[in-house]
Amino acid sequence: MSNKNIVNPYEVKGKVDYNGLIHEFGLEKIDEKVLNRIQNHTRDLHQMLKRGIIFAHRDLNWILDEYEKGNKFFLYTGCGPSGPIHLGHLQMWYFTKWLQDKFDCELYFQFTDDEKFLYKNLSYEEIQKWTEENMLDVIAIGFNPKKTHFIIDTKHAGLLYPEAIKIAKKITFSTIKSSFGFTDSNNIGSIFYTSMQAVPAILPSVLKKKNVPCLIPLGVDQDPHFRIARDVFPKLGFYKPAILHKLMFPSLTGMNNVMSSSKGSVLITARDSPSEVKKKINKYAFSGGQATMEEHKKKGGNPEIDVSFQYLKHFFEESDERLNQLEKDYTSGKISTGEMKYYTIEKINQFLKEHQKRRESAKSKISKYFLKY
Amino acid sequence: MSNKNIVNPYEVKGKVDYNGLIHEFGLEKIDEKVLNRIQNHTRDLHQMLKRGIIFAHRDLNWILDEYEKGNKFFLYTGCGPSGPIHLGHLQMWYFTKWLQDKFDCELYFQFTDDEKFLYKNLSYEEIQKWTEENMLDVIAIGFNPKKTHFIIDTKHAGLLYPEAIKIAKKITFSTIKSSFGFTDSNNIGSIFYTSMQAVPAILPSVLKKKNVPCLIPLGVDQDPHFRIARDVFPKLGFYKPAILHKLMFPSLTGMNNVMSSSKGSVLITARDSPSEVKKKINKYAFSGGQATMEEHKKKGGNPEIDVSFQYLKHFFEESDERLNQLEKDYTSGKISTGEMKYYTIEKINQFLKEHQKRRESAKSKISKYFLKY
Repeated sequence: MSNKNIVNPYEVKGKVDYNGLIHEFGLEKIDEKVLNRIQNHTRDLHQMLKRGIIFAHRDLNWILDEYEKGNKFFLYTGCGPSGPIHLGHLQMWYFTKWLQDKFDCELYFQFTDDEKFLYKNLSYEEIQKWTEENMLDVIAIGFNPKKTHFIIDTKHAGLLYPEAIKIAKKITFSTIKSSFGFTDSNNIGSIFYTSMQAVPAILPSVLKKKNVPCLIPLGVDQDPHFRIARDVFPKLGFYKPAILHKLMFPSLTGMNNVMSSSKGSVLITARDSPSEVKKKINKYAFSGGQATMEEHKKKGGNPEIDVSFQYLKHFFEESDERLNQLEKDYTSGKISTGEMKYYTIEKINQFLKEHQKRRESAKSKISKYFLKY
Repeated sequence: MSNKNIVNPYEVKGKVDYNGLIHEFGLEKIDEKVLNRIQNHTRDLHQMLKRGIIFAHRDLNWILDEYEKGNKFFLYTGCGPSGPIHLGHLQMWYFTKWLQDKFDCELYFQFTDDEKFLYKNLSYEEIQKWTEENMLDVIAIGFNPKKTHFIIDTKHAGLLYPEAIKIAKKITFSTIKSSFGFTDSNNIGSIFYTSMQAVPAILPSVLKKKNVPCLIPLGVDQDPHFRIARDVFPKLGFYKPAILHKLMFPSLTGMNNVMSSSKGSVLITARDSPSEVKKKINKYAFSGGQATMEEHKKKGGNPEIDVSFQYLKHFFEESDERLNQLEKDYTSGKISTGEMKYYTIEKINQFLKEHQKRRESAKSKISKYFLKY
């Protein structure tokens, strides 16, 4: 275990070994069989499912069993508001919208402003500003407004805290230490916090006074929170939530890092202008191509490490046919890194243009999304 | 430091060395000078002040300075609802009422139902039942209903939690370990909890958006919570609260233990009938007298260790003259332990009769006392 992955909500170190993670975390791989089960209900499959970007799960078969028995699940995902929304967030949430549309689900969307305040060197006011900002992007995703409920931890604390202490009573600091790599120097709010993140997974069950199945789509770094929560919930009489695990979204500078606001790395944000996107991709996106054009034409490029191609694969190219063609042509050297970048810039900008348009009209809608109770 | 006192909210071990505690905790002794300052405003002095039952303080001179400048303080005290109210609670709260009456103060009264749930082997529902029960006793004390505000941690979490995380961000687990004797096996709710207990000391300042001085009368075992909080508040721009420290109320079985619902010891509760009080005092109250009546008449008794006398001294005998006479007569052997018990039973029963009468009409008033915000 000397090569153990460091993948938790507070640290993702180096190149993630996803197969190792499946073993370490005890996840199930997304396979043909479970994809077929999903497709029975959704007709088509989202590109992230087909391409293994959603690569693992917990209890997905159980949640489909329940669904097929007429016991509908709700979705729960969230946002840690400490900076601008970037492509990694958008990818996760547009996939969540696809799930909501296909399964016609309620969605509980948590803004973990307490978490970000407790973990970041930012003031309470700065975090509140980012929470407002980020809510606009979440609204712009286009979730069903009648079935989407925002939970803002500090604003909904009256609802969350009484449930969080029931969870917290069953979690020792030893567990937190081993799950998140904490020490005695961590602040006591950050130590408690995982109980607050657990609550939305049972909140509809609490409010409706009957058990409702929950499906959580998340970036795999968030799994440790729910690994702990899943141990606790049955002791309190609740279902364990099912989980869908997404690969980490790659950093511009290469596949060995993840796009993250925590790392001071270059982000492509939801509010970037077309020229900013162009500049960032052209300047930073790691190339899988050869040193010279001639060499590239002769030997071809490596799409596995070409960040532009990977962005298309992870999310921005919906057509499998087109993606396969790009892969073939890049591998053979028929198309250059420059051409790959050009195409990727076009795809991202086209996507952001629509997103930004919807974002403009989001402000007046915020309070409509707040969970009422 | 091998004889270090173990005195914290979660453990009070053996006979407390109060002078040692003043040194260890860094408290100031209640002396003539500060008593005179109080008396300037209150005309008379409560028996607990005159007799050194309120034995120490923090920053009482500061709070009187502010008061004399016209900057009124508010009072903050509380109740951990996990069992019946006993004489130790009543003593603390009737003294608090005296302070409220004399200084015409607002009082914030916290019910720490989250704390008790997190620390005790009791269900959430049992704790809620005790909270309701205990509120009746607090109302029966007779606090000014226009100036008394109940804070129930789980019900007011929407107000408390956003402030608690600001405090929690500045407290490490190391601090908690050394203050409360915790280990990695403590649950993460109990580790966070001290931040919730800190909030009422700044809540009026938060709500009024200006600093308001706070005075906290408490049993000295609660001091560690506020020793931590006092370190944090100035970093957040708030005053440190002043504190009045009460001796622990003695157990029936002797001065080497304290009356506490945690210890499974025999309690005299606020709801005991006259015959229950009589039975408990007669059966359990440790006697400072001699083995036989004859010996007692010859050698006299020791009021320092006679629990009945100590109950009178700690609270139930208001008249200093009468108390001094009892002390003299017991020391000389003129009155027996039986007579001392008889008198103590009368005094306690008389007191509880009035309390219980007021308690009967308390139920309909509960919600009026809840802090509105």
